[in-house]
Amino acid sequence: MPLVRISLRRGKSAAHLAALRNGIYAAMRDTFDVPERDRFILIHQHEAEEFDCDPDYLGIARSSDLVIVQIACNDTRTLEQKQALYQRVVENLAADPGLRPEDVFINLLETAKQNWSFGNGIAQYA
Amino acid sequence: MPLVRISLRRGKSAAHLAALRNGIYAAMRDTFDVPERDRFILIHQHEAEEFDCDPDYLGIARSSDLVIVQIACNDTRTLEQKQALYQRVVENLAADPGLRPEDVFINLLETAKQNWSFGNGIAQYA
Amino acid sequence: MPLVRISLRRGKSAAHLAALRNGIYAAMRDTFDVPERDRFILIHQHEAEEFDCDPDYLGIARSSDLVIVQIACNDTRTLEQKQALYQRVVENLAADPGLRPEDVFINLLETAKQNWSFGNGIAQYA
Repeated sequence: MPLVRISLRRGKSAAHLAALRNGIYAAMRDTFDVPERDRFILIHQHEAEEFDCDPDYLGIARSSDLVIVQIACNDTRTLEQKQALYQRVVENLAADPGLRPEDVFINLLETAKQNWSFGNGIAQYA
Repeated sequence: MPLVRISLRRGKSAAHLAALRNGIYAAMRDTFDVPERDRFILIHQHEAEEFDCDPDYLGIARSSDLVIVQIACNDTRTLEQKQALYQRVVENLAADPGLRPEDVFINLLETAKQNWSFGNGIAQYA
Repeated sequence: MPLVRISLRRGKSAAHLAALRNGIYAAMRDTFDVPERDRFILIHQHEAEEFDCDPDYLGIARSSDLVIVQIACNDTRTLEQKQALYQRVVENLAADPGLRPEDVFINLLETAKQNWSFGNGIAQYA
């Protein structure tokens, strides 16, 4: 049920985009109790004037490879699970497509289990 | 006040997109206590590599017509209202543009009434 | 930590888009306890059939210049701060790029401090 939006600068290869999707999905599987095949990932590519992210906030040096990952998910995870997710996403994306750890920004939007319908008009998790 | 984001694969006709918008608005009017003209709907069209949604999660067979509907709304609805919304959206989009019930994914993000300004810099619902 | 998404009709100049970004950031700095350089702003430009927003809801006359601003932020602000933010965003965008106050729609999505990682896989605010 996580619904993932990835925002980044336009122009990366299809392989790069696939690695982003694969790495985030794998991290959610490994750290966030996400079932197999629970994979719903949207990518938004932005022109320079549409992507305005500080290159140094909190002393973290970000490059033009920065990805902004916003994940809508159930409000059921602990702080420890969230910390594990953040770390694993960074590890996976460092391995492929080779992102620097500084270039991974993550935000969670938590919502209730009854706030999802995966198809057929039914609240499957309610 | 619902703010609706619809994500789907790029390439549908203008009539198809209008039917999506109309059907979701009508469903919110009928089941979700949404006032007349409270219609704020954004569509994001995605290329194949930007739209990565499992074709079988929970045993629901999704096609390339899948729409992902994310609705930011007040935290005032009951489970029964949410179930009615999910069902009605599916019914309306089955009628027009003819979506299969399996191809309608819905996620609600609930927020407080004071978290909206509809214009003029005022929190109209606070 | 606010993560800002601005949606508007496609076709405005780069200067117009920059003024939107600058005005919203300045308003958050002045009214919302947002630290310097905490600036993460994404813009989504929409074709006409992708941007369906009522031109009169609540008696507010909206034009094709309408901007929809959705801000994910910590759940730490008072109603007074939110009202100040709404007002300041309108004032700033009226000054530059010259938006009418009716053409500024704002929605906040509040989330917990532990729901952010600004890089390096760490929950910096937890």
